[in-house]
Amino acid sequence: MEMPSRKGKYTIELNTKPAVLSFASTVGKKEHEGPYGRYYDKNYNDTSLGESSWEKAESRLQNEAVNISLQKANLKNSDIDCIFAGDLLNQCISSTFGLKGLNIPFLGQYGACSTMAQTLGIASLFVESGAAKKAIAVTSSHFCSAERQFRYPLEYGGQRTPTSQWTATAAGAIVIGARSDNLDAKVSINSVTFGRITDYGVKDVNNMGAAMAPAAAQTLLDFFSDTKTVPLDYDLILTGDLGKVGGDLLEEMMKEEKIDISPVHNDCGLMIYDREKQDVHAGGSGCGCSAAILCSPILQQMDLGQLHRVLFIGTGALMSPTSSQQGETIPGVAHLVYLTA
Amino acid sequence: MEMPSRKGKYTIELNTKPAVLSFASTVGKKEHEGPYGRYYDKNYNDTSLGESSWEKAESRLQNEAVNISLQKANLKNSDIDCIFAGDLLNQCISSTFGLKGLNIPFLGQYGACSTMAQTLGIASLFVESGAAKKAIAVTSSHFCSAERQFRYPLEYGGQRTPTSQWTATAAGAIVIGARSDNLDAKVSINSVTFGRITDYGVKDVNNMGAAMAPAAAQTLLDFFSDTKTVPLDYDLILTGDLGKVGGDLLEEMMKEEKIDISPVHNDCGLMIYDREKQDVHAGGSGCGCSAAILCSPILQQMDLGQLHRVLFIGTGALMSPTSSQQGETIPGVAHLVYLTA
Repeated sequence: MEMPSRKGKYTIELNTKPAVLSFASTVGKKEHEGPYGRYYDKNYNDTSLGESSWEKAESRLQNEAVNISLQKANLKNSDIDCIFAGDLLNQCISSTFGLKGLNIPFLGQYGACSTMAQTLGIASLFVESGAAKKAIAVTSSHFCSAERQFRYPLEYGGQRTPTSQWTATAAGAIVIGARSDNLDAKVSINSVTFGRITDYGVKDVNNMGAAMAPAAAQTLLDFFSDTKTVPLDYDLILTGDLGKVGGDLLEEMMKEEKIDISPVHNDCGLMIYDREKQDVHAGGSGCGCSAAILCSPILQQMDLGQLHRVLFIGTGALMSPTSSQQGETIPGVAHLVYLTA
Repeated sequence: MEMPSRKGKYTIELNTKPAVLSFASTVGKKEHEGPYGRYYDKNYNDTSLGESSWEKAESRLQNEAVNISLQKANLKNSDIDCIFAGDLLNQCISSTFGLKGLNIPFLGQYGACSTMAQTLGIASLFVESGAAKKAIAVTSSHFCSAERQFRYPLEYGGQRTPTSQWTATAAGAIVIGARSDNLDAKVSINSVTFGRITDYGVKDVNNMGAAMAPAAAQTLLDFFSDTKTVPLDYDLILTGDLGKVGGDLLEEMMKEEKIDISPVHNDCGLMIYDREKQDVHAGGSGCGCSAAILCSPILQQMDLGQLHRVLFIGTGALMSPTSSQQGETIPGVAHLVYLTA
């Protein structure tokens, strides 16, 4: 059994190629009406999921995503050595309350909207090293719980700016297992590049895309430099979630470094909704947005052999309402996971 | 080079014995006046640390703890492959804003008051596997930022119940490095046992100790069962932070399982303050409490050969003001790190 090895300054190569054993996504009504609606495992017409609060509804989204992923892999809770989970709510309560009944060792993560990449990267490293035989990465977000925590009470009906993004009501979960026990699993985790925090001084909480784009650019540049590869070596460079403003900004920032990602770049925030018809302004956001897109259309296409080499870059805006009210900037972070099929 | 291996159901043995290269703590005035005052690396008479908000003061505590630990190990930021950090504030802003200038790959963690054990455990596993040559684990808390977020504005002067604990103004940081490069480092990380979430239905936010004790008991029982050892095989079983109520409860719960930890058990929440003189009711709490106790008296005594085998169990109450206002219980989690000297 080999060990992970460092490649260049920031990239960790996973020599055993941990396997994606299964994946699942759960979404709300608006996400189900989006362009990839038919790909998700489960959708709810009632955004409350029948629960008595938005927070409990989000917990349930996450819980169901984990349970469906376990069923798809034909696994029991006791087969999983560790679960890595996080979300946007204060003290990560969607994860805690959603997963508390599972009886699986629990490691709470906070990476804002980069959480799917962060949990997937760490879970893969645990499996690579043998610290876990099988591990789960999961995250969620909910439009209603996020709106009232980060912005305004829903009843207030606050006006949204053109650069604002729509927090997705969605969750995604992935089960990772040791390659040696799962030789026929189609998708592998190839390498992980964890990002450094960037801060370009953006303070506009209605323009998260601009705050996160520099972090995505830095991590992508680190990865290309470490691996001596170029964008066209990959079928898809998938950021999540920069939306329209941040996505365009990332492409421009990369062009200034003489790297053109535009032929293979897409962003989960641009995929989850139809921006023309669904009135989401700059696109989707929230941990659950990139989680649902990765855990449904992307991994399904990889399983079918339609996509082979995918760079998944989760981007997070590391602010809180308190820091913004105190006049602070919005630092960003981006973590990259390289998946192959 | 060996790999980590699983021992029993929940314990991960670190076969290379990652080395503690350095550690540092920073504390406020009240903590400096406590029984271990002379052990901390730096203390501040002004609880604001000269910053314009309590949140910025907490960020600075964390930043300084990291910088002092780097200086003590004679390392530069660029020598560190990864930093694992977390705190109690919404969206973990003490960590983000305290560490954003370091330019070190950043992985935010949320384990409430178990964060020191969680970050130390994951950092050690990254070093063990070769995913990082050197990594830092760090956490903090601040009485004033925690009071206003979790309880009342300071100016309100809310009455405290006898079971309540006092959030420590403190931070602690540990640098972990590969044993093969640091043969003369005295303290090793021997094994890690990550905990499952427990929920005994406790709802009293002024009695966190009772909410966390079952989690500590479960993780300790897992560890003893996995390793086939008994309490007297260790010099110290150090929980953090159960305080008086939770600490007594843990000893009772263990006795019901026919395991007597009382001869070697102590709790960081009982060590950081003088409960007779400092009016802290059930003791100290907050991520920074166990971080400062571990990163000063305990690791110093291990370095001096006064302590050889220490079980460090971080305990976290995974609630938020929102979940408590919605009538939810307080789930607990506890992670165990076994250190040897």
